[in-house]
Amino acid sequence: MSTPSVPVRTKRAFNFNAGPAALPVSVLEQIREELLDYRGTGMSVMEMSHRSAEYEAINAGAEVNLRKLLGIPDDFAVIFLQGGGSMQFTMAPMNLGLPGKPIDVLHTGAWTAKAIGELKKGILHHIAASTEAEKFRRLPRPEELKLSPDASYTHLCTNNTIEGTQWHALPESAAPIVADMSSDIASRQIDVSKFGLIFAGAQKNLGPSGVTIVIVRKDLAERADKNLPTLLQYRTHIKERSLYHTPPTFAVYILGLVTEWIASEGGVPGIERRNEAKAKLLYDMLDKSGGYFQCPVENRSRSLMNVVFRVAGGDEAAEKEFAKQAAAAGLIGTPGHRSVGGMRISLYNAVGLDAVEALCSFMKEFQRARG
Amino acid sequence: MSTPSVPVRTKRAFNFNAGPAALPVSVLEQIREELLDYRGTGMSVMEMSHRSAEYEAINAGAEVNLRKLLGIPDDFAVIFLQGGGSMQFTMAPMNLGLPGKPIDVLHTGAWTAKAIGELKKGILHHIAASTEAEKFRRLPRPEELKLSPDASYTHLCTNNTIEGTQWHALPESAAPIVADMSSDIASRQIDVSKFGLIFAGAQKNLGPSGVTIVIVRKDLAERADKNLPTLLQYRTHIKERSLYHTPPTFAVYILGLVTEWIASEGGVPGIERRNEAKAKLLYDMLDKSGGYFQCPVENRSRSLMNVVFRVAGGDEAAEKEFAKQAAAAGLIGTPGHRSVGGMRISLYNAVGLDAVEALCSFMKEFQRARG
Repeated sequence: MSTPSVPVRTKRAFNFNAGPAALPVSVLEQIREELLDYRGTGMSVMEMSHRSAEYEAINAGAEVNLRKLLGIPDDFAVIFLQGGGSMQFTMAPMNLGLPGKPIDVLHTGAWTAKAIGELKKGILHHIAASTEAEKFRRLPRPEELKLSPDASYTHLCTNNTIEGTQWHALPESAAPIVADMSSDIASRQIDVSKFGLIFAGAQKNLGPSGVTIVIVRKDLAERADKNLPTLLQYRTHIKERSLYHTPPTFAVYILGLVTEWIASEGGVPGIERRNEAKAKLLYDMLDKSGGYFQCPVENRSRSLMNVVFRVAGGDEAAEKEFAKQAAAAGLIGTPGHRSVGGMRISLYNAVGLDAVEALCSFMKEFQRARG
Repeated sequence: MSTPSVPVRTKRAFNFNAGPAALPVSVLEQIREELLDYRGTGMSVMEMSHRSAEYEAINAGAEVNLRKLLGIPDDFAVIFLQGGGSMQFTMAPMNLGLPGKPIDVLHTGAWTAKAIGELKKGILHHIAASTEAEKFRRLPRPEELKLSPDASYTHLCTNNTIEGTQWHALPESAAPIVADMSSDIASRQIDVSKFGLIFAGAQKNLGPSGVTIVIVRKDLAERADKNLPTLLQYRTHIKERSLYHTPPTFAVYILGLVTEWIASEGGVPGIERRNEAKAKLLYDMLDKSGGYFQCPVENRSRSLMNVVFRVAGGDEAAEKEFAKQAAAAGLIGTPGHRSVGGMRISLYNAVGLDAVEALCSFMKEFQRARG
């Protein structure tokens, strides 16, 4: 979709990458517009001091926008960190783990496996549910959860990027819920007050890689030992409003622009409706393909963000050909994660309905020619 | 300095910020050019998968360029991390500290104070030299160093941004030297083989904030306990060539462009000559001002990167006025760090000689009008 300010030669792909992923064209255009001179300062945002009034406004603006979009209550802090979701696998237990009280984990795929990997380094924890025996093709049912009576917190991953599953109802937990929301934050409405901590790398629904959003109940952040490394304590960043040390300024600026874009699209409710429509279009296409395209995920666990499927009964040659022809048609990022194979279509906020329509047309034609 | 492809309305300031800081205009122009469509991919670099061939080439290219520019030997790894120099105050002792063997610190200012702050959390260390009693206005002399016979390593900061001092000769140390080179990496020629580990946030001489360069002797990285958090072990990133988890892709891309720019400017020797000329111009101006502008730093410790001085004998009203008038004249970032006051002019790689000339003209006029 070109606009008058886009040079004619600019080609834009339909981008289904799993992250880093598509960004709104209007946001990219604004970045381009301001790149050498941010609003009359004579500098790029990336050349500005993080102590300047201009950057402090960018930093504060991104927080205010996120609070508004997600309805974040005042007893939660919002901070911007580095290190991605992976760093939170270390920071969350360091800060929120209580002596002698286990960390409960709901194990649903590759990302909870990473979280467990860090806990195995001597941190008391308990796998309170797991669907590994079923290759993570569904999420645990409420009656399958074996939560500890005295857990420090319950860790879960709201959307499993690789397996294509998503929690559609938050499980009950007496302990605070720590949610890895890296791949579905701001894609649907949530009740933040039901969580203890939410973390997410920005690079799927909210911006570029290099900035991590942490939303944490302030009282929980006070659990941490003050002798922990300064940068690894949430309270450091809460106290300094994400400005304890030099932040990833350009990434925070873009995060701010993306939050403005979401607001202009009807906020999270508007984005959610579009995300539902996009996913419905694609899942319907799969389910009506007569088995040529097959989604292995149980219906009630299906992700609106990452749609996984196999082609022609899991024929790897056909899948390779699918990805190749799709790329030639300008449909980028269709192969599944290297650990599971098959195809994966990521439908994050900035992916348009037009992209999904183009993909469905391509798939019909692919099936017609080979099916 | 506008070029034909810069729209007429683009105003560029003379940017003396201490970091994040000025970037080469040609680099910013290239970023702008490629922002919506990186070399025919139909995507911005920030929308590309970090597992794509295009990004892997960007990542590898940045490493190759840095190796060439700095002459980094093969027994050193080059990795790109997150968390800035501040995270290295934790990672370096975690990875390179040996049981029972102290970490020696040469204490020369605010940044070594931060490093010491982390060591004080239960890590065996020894202040092997300090010029704190002289308000850090000079660096320790060789005969003042009281190094431990069995140190894990010796920590120093090659350039002290706030105090305006710089090591011009590397001190002798039997233990490996761990150097915080955040504010002078790639600004002058160094012999990497004399170091054990070099770290630097990119945001002064090499790119935007959000990416940290670590150059580490591979054998030293193997000292680390394998039970440390995965992300906090250098070996994780060495093994995966900085692709263990999603890297700050856009920042690494810009780092790559800046290294190309340095190469085009005669490499580090060419940059060093220009940096020397810039600093000489400004220090001469100070020294010939008849005491109106006074640099408190001892001659042999003066930094080529950050020139600090007081105005009119440290008259704070005059200094405030200086910063105000300078900003009005398009000279940005002249106030000193809030902890020390006075003025500070940062002369990083991308600051042109023309900027220093403009500043000197302004200063002469300021003194003429008020001196």
